[in-house]
Amino acid sequence: NAAAKNAAVEVLTAQGCTVEVSDLYAMGFKATATAEDIKGEVKNADNFCYLEESKLAWEQGKLSDDITKEQSKLTEADLIIFQFPMYWFSVPAILKGWIDRVLTNGFAFSQDKRYSQGVFQDKKAMLSFTTGSLESMFSPTGINGDMNVTLWPLQNGILHYCGFQVLAPQIFWAPSAAAVEDRKSMLESWRTRLQGLLEEKPLSFVPLDCFDEAAFQLKPAVHEKHASEEFGLTVGIHLNKPLPPHSQMKAGYSKTD
Amino acid sequence: NAAAKNAAVEVLTAQGCTVEVSDLYAMGFKATATAEDIKGEVKNADNFCYLEESKLAWEQGKLSDDITKEQSKLTEADLIIFQFPMYWFSVPAILKGWIDRVLTNGFAFSQDKRYSQGVFQDKKAMLSFTTGSLESMFSPTGINGDMNVTLWPLQNGILHYCGFQVLAPQIFWAPSAAAVEDRKSMLESWRTRLQGLLEEKPLSFVPLDCFDEAAFQLKPAVHEKHASEEFGLTVGIHLNKPLPPHSQMKAGYSKTD
Repeated sequence: NAAAKNAAVEVLTAQGCTVEVSDLYAMGFKATATAEDIKGEVKNADNFCYLEESKLAWEQGKLSDDITKEQSKLTEADLIIFQFPMYWFSVPAILKGWIDRVLTNGFAFSQDKRYSQGVFQDKKAMLSFTTGSLESMFSPTGINGDMNVTLWPLQNGILHYCGFQVLAPQIFWAPSAAAVEDRKSMLESWRTRLQGLLEEKPLSFVPLDCFDEAAFQLKPAVHEKHASEEFGLTVGIHLNKPLPPHSQMKAGYSKTD
Repeated sequence: NAAAKNAAVEVLTAQGCTVEVSDLYAMGFKATATAEDIKGEVKNADNFCYLEESKLAWEQGKLSDDITKEQSKLTEADLIIFQFPMYWFSVPAILKGWIDRVLTNGFAFSQDKRYSQGVFQDKKAMLSFTTGSLESMFSPTGINGDMNVTLWPLQNGILHYCGFQVLAPQIFWAPSAAAVEDRKSMLESWRTRLQGLLEEKPLSFVPLDCFDEAAFQLKPAVHEKHASEEFGLTVGIHLNKPLPPHSQMKAGYSKTD
């Protein structure tokens, strides 16, 4: 992961990008969402609700400095790359803490600004990670199940929820089980990809206006239009059809155009 | 979540169970997996690998006291209930930290002991959580996608991976948007369920011996046997068929018996 991060810094900097790194372990980044994230008095200390209190604190400029600093970086950024070792089918706790604390209600989303209408529509984000398991284990017939399913809560539920254009993930499959040359070639292909990364087409998600506004269900007209298609619309919304292959891994699959 | 936890303690204690609560926030539980989790010298400080180092430390009895204490509780337990508010389609960072740090390589799984051959085959575990979103949003046609997909990495990738018999999740749908009476009846139905919880049949997962031992792919014979079935085997392994309804939410769906 360090090598992949270094490659990204190097290649993007060489292209003229300004690259800022948040090394969460080095920063000793606080992972847990608590009342200490708010400066001064909270609204309801007896029945503390983080979602509500952090929104209020954000509005009043009372979020703790470590959160505010990360939010400023996010505001500046055109592209965010999350580089991590996959732990237990998800991000490590320290990165989950960054997500829980920095993507504050109000700052990163609101009732009106979510998904394709989300706050960060003009920004891109992507996951770049290593796995412990072999690629075959994460195939549709593998024991871990389809990697698209594992990616859905992260890519749809976090990144796309905040409006980000989600670039295809960079997956380093089981590098610790790979030969040195294979590890080198994984890094080489990441370096090659990085050169064209900013021009890549993002993954497809179903636009918000395909859903009704009360229950957020697919509108009947959209349903009908796709009734005869081979695949469901996404990995999460499948219309009782097979999952579209690679919908969470390759750009360009879109049936709602 | 506090009310749901209290109900569980009360009802299970009344049934004669000994209930132990790990309140992670109250404990100030450390969420991040770092070299400080290991007492004394680590093997490779320059290129610290948590998976390897924590396994070694577990073997040598050198894991930090907070981890060891939680592992002892786990060893004693017949049933573990994870009670949490769903944050960003997953567990809050502090609970992810418990998972990352307590379910140590060697203690909770090994190359030979995973999934249906897992370490905790004789124990039960379940998720009990609140959502921010309405249930309709987490339906197969809802904007968040099928809740079964969101549950797969948690229930299959963490709980079942360690061998636990996974009981159906208890989902408190959007309690903060619900009327007081509805919240009360959510708690009432949890209390009712708790009375028979220990006798419940767990969710179904595809047994390990349905997969080959090299690539962990479904064996061709299993594939063929299920070719004519209506649904794929699980939410993660779908054979290009629709996801089985409620496979991650209701017990009793099993096509491999």
